[in-house]
Amino acid sequence: MSNEHIVSSFDEELRALHKSIMQMGGLVEAQIAQSMQAMSRRDSQLASAVVTADAKVDALHHEIDEQVVRMLALRQPMASDLRTVVASLRIATDLERIGDYAANIAKRTLALNVSPSVKPASGVLRMGKIVQSIVNDVLDAYAERNAERAAAIRERDTEVDELYTSIFRELLTYMMEDPRNITACTHVLFMSKNLERIGDHATNIAETIYYIVRGKVPDEERAKGDLSSMTAMTDKGVTYVADSQGN
Amino acid sequence: MSNEHIVSSFDEELRALHKSIMQMGGLVEAQIAQSMQAMSRRDSQLASAVVTADAKVDALHHEIDEQVVRMLALRQPMASDLRTVVASLRIATDLERIGDYAANIAKRTLALNVSPSVKPASGVLRMGKIVQSIVNDVLDAYAERNAERAAAIRERDTEVDELYTSIFRELLTYMMEDPRNITACTHVLFMSKNLERIGDHATNIAETIYYIVRGKVPDEERAKGDLSSMTAMTDKGVTYVADSQGN
Repeated sequence: MSNEHIVSSFDEELRALHKSIMQMGGLVEAQIAQSMQAMSRRDSQLASAVVTADAKVDALHHEIDEQVVRMLALRQPMASDLRTVVASLRIATDLERIGDYAANIAKRTLALNVSPSVKPASGVLRMGKIVQSIVNDVLDAYAERNAERAAAIRERDTEVDELYTSIFRELLTYMMEDPRNITACTHVLFMSKNLERIGDHATNIAETIYYIVRGKVPDEERAKGDLSSMTAMTDKGVTYVADSQGN
Repeated sequence: MSNEHIVSSFDEELRALHKSIMQMGGLVEAQIAQSMQAMSRRDSQLASAVVTADAKVDALHHEIDEQVVRMLALRQPMASDLRTVVASLRIATDLERIGDYAANIAKRTLALNVSPSVKPASGVLRMGKIVQSIVNDVLDAYAERNAERAAAIRERDTEVDELYTSIFRELLTYMMEDPRNITACTHVLFMSKNLERIGDHATNIAETIYYIVRGKVPDEERAKGDLSSMTAMTDKGVTYVADSQGN
């Protein structure tokens, strides 16, 4: 962290803000890991704990918002400091959403645990591992203020989107094979969608980190790998409908 | 708008920011209306137009972000002006998400249009109407800086959540009746989830408006009416599993 500030306590405030974001990030990381664990072990107690702990994430988000408004009001930061402070608002919003998705996965685990397990759930656990490692990576990139590392994370989201599209297809097939699977599969479908959204928010954070370091957003538009919105059932089986942009 | 500022061009900037938010709001409102129209008329051309127009929403979001950072850097606003400026960031983020959901509804319409129509789609159109009127209401509350009106909007979201839960159940039943409905119903499921999320983001905006006017967030925690995460299939049919908080 820079030592260029005349008012040394502003540095302390920046450090406190950084610490709050890291704390929120750590909490959210644990929420994802535990929601996945609750799902794989069919552990309803752990799932309930994740649902409850979401309030802590929300409280931290609120705290960071207040920290930022206070710093803007009292310190009127400029240039890269202003970028860092404003970016913290964005990162905290993305982390809060990630926390929400983890809590929703936990809620659905509670519902899943009253019926027999469904096969495609294993794909979701694999997706969960990738998403966890991306969130971990993005927090490291934030800690290091590493723009290259942040930029590389955007590539990894494609992997998540592709896995999501394949799980989506697998789930549809599974539901068609046996209608008794439908309720459980619908939950698994939303769980995998939640993980896909966590990947998107991690990517947003990566872009914000890039913005903090470089003062601009990364250039190229990220490729959209989630094709599931385009899935159609035709007499040739599950296919994709292209929209006018071909994506 | 207040005339208390010494530097008159700051007022102009505040007005410009207000105008950008209203413009983004109007665009997003049109996107929801058109995505619903495309769905009800099975109009793939209109659906494609909605998908394309999402780029305009994103561009406006980016512009507002830049306006805000510029104003914070050059004007260093205080008290209620600072609140308004920071709140604009939040509102623009929520509007951008609403735009994304509308575009996703349009994408799914493209996929739906290649197969026969499914019955529960009518419930989604009803839900769409309510959500549209809520978004309209929230933009009016923003234009008027009306905290009471904003607070009242939070109540309306319960209606959306309840309708979503009922559509969710209807869709599950429909899928179980005939597996050939599964792909289409899955899209309708996500479309209704998208509308439910639009309702949530409209509520976020309502809370932000309250914060702009009153300088604090509304007190009571909003009741959660979306019970679908808790849906379980038991031998008694579709039921709800309560988590440890009973919601």
